[in-house]
Amino acid sequence: MNDMKNPWEKLHDLIADTGTEQILIFFDSLGAAETARTISRISQEDQIRLFTLLAPADAAELIEDISDVQAADLIEDLPPERAAAILEELDSDHLVDVLGEVDDHLAEAILGEMDHEDAKEARQFLEYPRDSAGGLMVSEVLAYAWDKRVSDILKDLQKNRETYAEYNVQYLYVTRDGNRLAGVLRMHDLLFPARDALLRDLMIKDPLKVDVNTPLEKLRNFFEEHHLFGVPVVDAEGELLGVVLPEAVEEASRKRSVRQFLGVSGIVGGEEFRTMPLLIRSGRRLSWLSLNIVLNIMAASVIALYQDTLSAAIALAVFLPMVSDMSGCSGNQAVAVSMRELSLGLVRPYELMRVLAKEASLGILNGAALGLMLGTVAYLWKGNFYLGLVVGGGLAVNTIVAVCLGGLLPLMLKRLKMDPALVSSPLLTTVTDMCGFFFVLSFATAVMGKISGF
Amino acid sequence: MNDMKNPWEKLHDLIADTGTEQILIFFDSLGAAETARTISRISQEDQIRLFTLLAPADAAELIEDISDVQAADLIEDLPPERAAAILEELDSDHLVDVLGEVDDHLAEAILGEMDHEDAKEARQFLEYPRDSAGGLMVSEVLAYAWDKRVSDILKDLQKNRETYAEYNVQYLYVTRDGNRLAGVLRMHDLLFPARDALLRDLMIKDPLKVDVNTPLEKLRNFFEEHHLFGVPVVDAEGELLGVVLPEAVEEASRKRSVRQFLGVSGIVGGEEFRTMPLLIRSGRRLSWLSLNIVLNIMAASVIALYQDTLSAAIALAVFLPMVSDMSGCSGNQAVAVSMRELSLGLVRPYELMRVLAKEASLGILNGAALGLMLGTVAYLWKGNFYLGLVVGGGLAVNTIVAVCLGGLLPLMLKRLKMDPALVSSPLLTTVTDMCGFFFVLSFATAVMGKISGF
Repeated sequence: MNDMKNPWEKLHDLIADTGTEQILIFFDSLGAAETARTISRISQEDQIRLFTLLAPADAAELIEDISDVQAADLIEDLPPERAAAILEELDSDHLVDVLGEVDDHLAEAILGEMDHEDAKEARQFLEYPRDSAGGLMVSEVLAYAWDKRVSDILKDLQKNRETYAEYNVQYLYVTRDGNRLAGVLRMHDLLFPARDALLRDLMIKDPLKVDVNTPLEKLRNFFEEHHLFGVPVVDAEGELLGVVLPEAVEEASRKRSVRQFLGVSGIVGGEEFRTMPLLIRSGRRLSWLSLNIVLNIMAASVIALYQDTLSAAIALAVFLPMVSDMSGCSGNQAVAVSMRELSLGLVRPYELMRVLAKEASLGILNGAALGLMLGTVAYLWKGNFYLGLVVGGGLAVNTIVAVCLGGLLPLMLKRLKMDPALVSSPLLTTVTDMCGFFFVLSFATAVMGKISGF
Repeated sequence: MNDMKNPWEKLHDLIADTGTEQILIFFDSLGAAETARTISRISQEDQIRLFTLLAPADAAELIEDISDVQAADLIEDLPPERAAAILEELDSDHLVDVLGEVDDHLAEAILGEMDHEDAKEARQFLEYPRDSAGGLMVSEVLAYAWDKRVSDILKDLQKNRETYAEYNVQYLYVTRDGNRLAGVLRMHDLLFPARDALLRDLMIKDPLKVDVNTPLEKLRNFFEEHHLFGVPVVDAEGELLGVVLPEAVEEASRKRSVRQFLGVSGIVGGEEFRTMPLLIRSGRRLSWLSLNIVLNIMAASVIALYQDTLSAAIALAVFLPMVSDMSGCSGNQAVAVSMRELSLGLVRPYELMRVLAKEASLGILNGAALGLMLGTVAYLWKGNFYLGLVVGGGLAVNTIVAVCLGGLLPLMLKRLKMDPALVSSPLLTTVTDMCGFFFVLSFATAVMGKISGF
């Protein structure tokens, strides 16, 4: 009978009735995605009970399977000392990702419950911008002073086998004068030399490294150029702070693409999951929609100015939403291409003239094609050539405006340090709607005598 | 004076006048993104000359710095034997990525010029779906028979140092009975045992592995659960085919997010860069826009049916584009949330009722709020309560429709094996436009006596 139940119903029973062992066996039977789904579907009380029952290390493993936003929600519901114990089991990179999503006030309370050294490190990590080498690095590295011998290292590796097995790092870093990065060794560089050789004589000197402030795009370029398992991160004094792994860079880039996708779709202010409370979901979506409705009202007020033209040729009312929608589509295509080229470094924010030239020629072509299509439809429908001219001409001209503006907007927003994913689309739609209504209705007013009554 | 020039102008001069050495020094001075930009900005003839001048290995390094689509364009312009020589220098994963973007006919010609073994392997790799373990793996692995001794391995590692330095793999795989995967060893497992120990006695038995058909999502879950530097890929018989690295999985996920972002923005049929020929760019964008205009005409035809209502209350014409736009926005938010939940595995395609329940309640809330806002504006503008009721009521009801449909569409399209990123938005907009026009205009017809003349 138990098999008829959903995983989350089974989990509920397990939490209520049985020991932690059964719960661990249960989660072992689920994959990461199924784990995330199951945890998200149980009640908040069950979540709290689950994360209180489990040993911190086991709880941390579950945290690793769920998204940062979900994890932060969960952590916020736990008593701070419990939350601290669990978070301490995560690696530094992940700890900061989760803690960064937690409410500041609570995060401080959790840090207060953590081991002093860990808390100090976490605070330092939280200060680095998320998409920089500092925000992406892990502090778990193998580092040895350069006057050590191979035999010292082998002894240390042997002794701390278990700790190091958790380290996701395949290089040994060699330091001098305290913690200054001097060189690097690959694990297999230790296979061949004599056991009493000094690290300083074996190491690859002046290794590739990045500054702690290096931004995400530069890191991606770095790993595209150098196929390495990690790059050491240093501060301005050359002190070794940690290591950035290529998968952390790819993951951050993926998250950025996700944010772009959500942004252009009108999900702003953070991710939304359907397990979140209704009022939070509704409020967040509404805040963006409310801004949009104001912009829409501004745009539509152009129509109100031309009410007389519109009553004289009511057929135009059929075409206004089409002109508005089609121009928006054309413009959004150009926005997407600009955002891609910006993120690939194929265009720079100051190259406005280049983009304008490229988009203007395309806008003329596509404007002509779309204008011809819609104009023909209008002409055939009412048999009035001027109606076709007004509608087709309006769409044609407005497509040129939309395509040029769409291409330029992301570059301009980038220069103004605004997020193109969030701002481009509402701004573009407002301007192209206004212009579209204006072109169609002012063209119509100009040939009023020819189209009135249609 | 040379310093006044753009990188691509400098490159043009170098290609025309000087030897390959200067060209290599020049590229060394550029980062990966700058390399990609520079190559994209020189003329096609210069590109061909550049990739003919350089040694294949050097040309391959440039190929690694540019996107797959750009690389494929470039490769297509080269003589097949030249293209083959360059592609052979790439690792198997990258080779397939680039060749997969090349026109099929040309790809066959290039394969024909490649070394027989390499071509055979590439053909096999090309058959695996792009986002599967087979499509993401590299075939460059260190594999040894299980009856070898540590000393044999050390000898081989020493001898082939340079070749293996290029291998992006940190495990040794142990095989038996030909090429069947039997175990795995980490590099540092070789540091401590006696030199005459057998691999079969040292190896970690029954290592984690994935089937060649494992899809991308499963691979991402795998690496979220297991922090490894790679996972061996086997076929149905357990033969070792290659290894998938975590960064390859993250990169493929990122590319998928990028495709989603481009898809919802109306860039379909492949990436677009502004260096592509105008007619190709225009044609691709137009093909999607043309479909859209047809859908728009269908939706707007609802307005045409209510022309009499509209001429009697021309104020409605101001609000129709707003209702259409706002409903589209509300629906797209729900689409984005569903697509995210699907890709994270938080919702399954068959859970329609769950999504419907969650979106219906949100739709009622947001519909009421937006309807109240727009209705109030309409009422205040003309001082006619019924006009406010018609406009606000139409938007409210249509928001519920849009939000529910938006939430459900990605799940339904996924079940029909269609791409939600490409299909959701046009389909959603058409239906919500039609419904929106219908609600507003039929409500208006019902209270015609109260609003005519406004």
